[in-house]
Amino acid sequence: MANPRYSRELTALLVIDPYNDFISEGGKIWDRIRAVAEANECVAHMLQILNAARRAELRVFYALHRRYRPGDYETWTYIAPIQKAAWQRKTFEYGTWGGEIRPEFVPKPGEIVAAEHWCSSGFANTDLDLLLKKHGIHQLIVIGLIAHTCVESTVRFAAELGYEVTVVRDATADYSGEAMHAALDLNIPNYASAILRTEEIVAAISAL
Amino acid sequence: MANPRYSRELTALLVIDPYNDFISEGGKIWDRIRAVAEANECVAHMLQILNAARRAELRVFYALHRRYRPGDYETWTYIAPIQKAAWQRKTFEYGTWGGEIRPEFVPKPGEIVAAEHWCSSGFANTDLDLLLKKHGIHQLIVIGLIAHTCVESTVRFAAELGYEVTVVRDATADYSGEAMHAALDLNIPNYASAILRTEEIVAAISAL
Amino acid sequence: MANPRYSRELTALLVIDPYNDFISEGGKIWDRIRAVAEANECVAHMLQILNAARRAELRVFYALHRRYRPGDYETWTYIAPIQKAAWQRKTFEYGTWGGEIRPEFVPKPGEIVAAEHWCSSGFANTDLDLLLKKHGIHQLIVIGLIAHTCVESTVRFAAELGYEVTVVRDATADYSGEAMHAALDLNIPNYASAILRTEEIVAAISAL
Amino acid sequence: MANPRYSRELTALLVIDPYNDFISEGGKIWDRIRAVAEANECVAHMLQILNAARRAELRVFYALHRRYRPGDYETWTYIAPIQKAAWQRKTFEYGTWGGEIRPEFVPKPGEIVAAEHWCSSGFANTDLDLLLKKHGIHQLIVIGLIAHTCVESTVRFAAELGYEVTVVRDATADYSGEAMHAALDLNIPNYASAILRTEEIVAAISAL
Repeated sequence: MANPRYSRELTALLVIDPYNDFISEGGKIWDRIRAVAEANECVAHMLQILNAARRAELRVFYALHRRYRPGDYETWTYIAPIQKAAWQRKTFEYGTWGGEIRPEFVPKPGEIVAAEHWCSSGFANTDLDLLLKKHGIHQLIVIGLIAHTCVESTVRFAAELGYEVTVVRDATADYSGEAMHAALDLNIPNYASAILRTEEIVAAISAL
Repeated sequence: MANPRYSRELTALLVIDPYNDFISEGGKIWDRIRAVAEANECVAHMLQILNAARRAELRVFYALHRRYRPGDYETWTYIAPIQKAAWQRKTFEYGTWGGEIRPEFVPKPGEIVAAEHWCSSGFANTDLDLLLKKHGIHQLIVIGLIAHTCVESTVRFAAELGYEVTVVRDATADYSGEAMHAALDLNIPNYASAILRTEEIVAAISAL
Repeated sequence: MANPRYSRELTALLVIDPYNDFISEGGKIWDRIRAVAEANECVAHMLQILNAARRAELRVFYALHRRYRPGDYETWTYIAPIQKAAWQRKTFEYGTWGGEIRPEFVPKPGEIVAAEHWCSSGFANTDLDLLLKKHGIHQLIVIGLIAHTCVESTVRFAAELGYEVTVVRDATADYSGEAMHAALDLNIPNYASAILRTEEIVAAISAL
Repeated sequence: MANPRYSRELTALLVIDPYNDFISEGGKIWDRIRAVAEANECVAHMLQILNAARRAELRVFYALHRRYRPGDYETWTYIAPIQKAAWQRKTFEYGTWGGEIRPEFVPKPGEIVAAEHWCSSGFANTDLDLLLKKHGIHQLIVIGLIAHTCVESTVRFAAELGYEVTVVRDATADYSGEAMHAALDLNIPNYASAILRTEEIVAAISAL
């Protein structure tokens, strides 16, 4: 598998769900992903990559999960299990600290935030595909959370929609090593053209 | 053309862009649609239909255009003419009166507001289709603005996506009689199963 | 409105529905569009543009309506008026001459034919968007039939999906001058960045 | 997790890729899935469920992978790894036995075959969502191949699009027990409301 050749015109960084609830001490989900995230230094790596992308003037996009608001889901006839869980936990509750982006990852002017997604894919029922096309982007470097749900779904959708995808294996995390392995070693290799480590992608971005 | 048979389970009202900028005295676009809107009593009719739907406990959905925010469009490589115009005029500017929904049309609890759309179709790059499906809806009664742009595009998309559409001819308006005629008499009849007057749709809804 | 700057990498020609039923003497719909099509020499112009695109090695895509097959629509609960008409007339019947592409427009090897569409937009429920992205295309030059239905819906969808669109005004046709006018002068100018004549687009393509 | 309540009006069976290349002795992929498929009697179960659905007059839909045709992929600028593999192997080659549906699974009149998909999801770039909506379907019972690619992607897309999904665990198969486990036990439980065994789903269908 030859790595994609990135370019400032065609390549963007996609940051998935850098909410406090996921990646900050005290977040609602942090305790469930801490073991994996600390072992692979996920948050530090995400930040290194974001900073490298900003320095290289690569376009940066954000795919964010629906922040829970009162009334959400209440009238739905059909609801997926992962949505039931989000409803129960009020994950990323709007107006709370947990539903805010961890400070180092707050989008800067000129960076693009897609509409919030209701399930796992950053593309489903959002303007992410539109906004990527409006900027001429065809290649995505994907970092963020959680590997086997939002990251994998976003990668599967990206491939189905025609994008060339790179996933950074130590800039994501999961509930267990088994779930990480399933996402990164069994499934995503079918859809992502490259699965790199942070130092590799930072080197590639910095060389642009 | 036999009219659709509506039901509380399958039918929803879809209100398109009831912003002050469109339908309130002093709105940025009001002067351009006033002639048609006053001649057919568009706003009063929209309100009659909304009230009838609420009384009948029909589901109500809102499709809203992107409210202009600083930074919008600035980085886009590709932009459609109608988006250039929205950018120039700052239509529905976020945080201003023009970008607020006209008070009588403000969504009530239990009514569903789809993500904002960037162009004309309430379905494109939004969660409108998802939210309709989550509620089991297959039939749409469409009212709002503007006939030959947002209304027609939303109707075309609705038909393409499999919905059965009714448009209310005196609960929409346009820049000119010619544009209204093109939308209501030439184009929409291909995609909407019924094009009714307010009194007809109010009667049908009230009989549920 | 400045014209788009075309390029071999980013621009493709999109040919819509060049079926015998539409544009050949004896086709099921030909008699209804003949007056407009003969007045503006639609078919000759379509061919000139296709040939210019082929000479310039521009990518050529085809958006084709569902060719009627026995069983189509029979089990559907919901059907749009334009689909009822297609069902009744068995337009573009599969296996018949009317459902064949007019010989001069038959795709050549390396040209891309999208999956058939069920209503009017070449993008809806097909792989057209995917196949354009797989080839890196962002700009479309649109020719073919019928102006106020398939052409306009395809243009509206293209703009919603982020493409930059050019329509060629004398390489399309319609049932009436009024319907042509509605499509080309009232509606499409909102979504297409340029509306050119055949000689203009042929000159632009030939200069690549 | 309470099981969905199925109904003839709202529920359909979705059969994924019952091609000879997958599930018939001598098929190009059969040897790779044989171990799992024989251990759980996948093919016999798929047939039991299809027959039960036919007897109960449940709607049956088919999601089929692109059958390889000469020229496919050759001009693409961007291609996912799973598509490269399909290209290399000429999986489901059009016009060959491997690209035919295994005889017991050939669609009957009134059963609906969606347009072929290019990657893994039966929904992506096809008319599957449209055809389900045209029939009023909101619940899917999913069987077929391969668990961690086409089945899982189709289930993820179905959930994102708003459908309520049931997967039948012994009516699918995979390259390894590990891949089956990742699909059925780690990932799909987030998106499918129920994961049943064949005898359970046959009982539920037969009770309709």
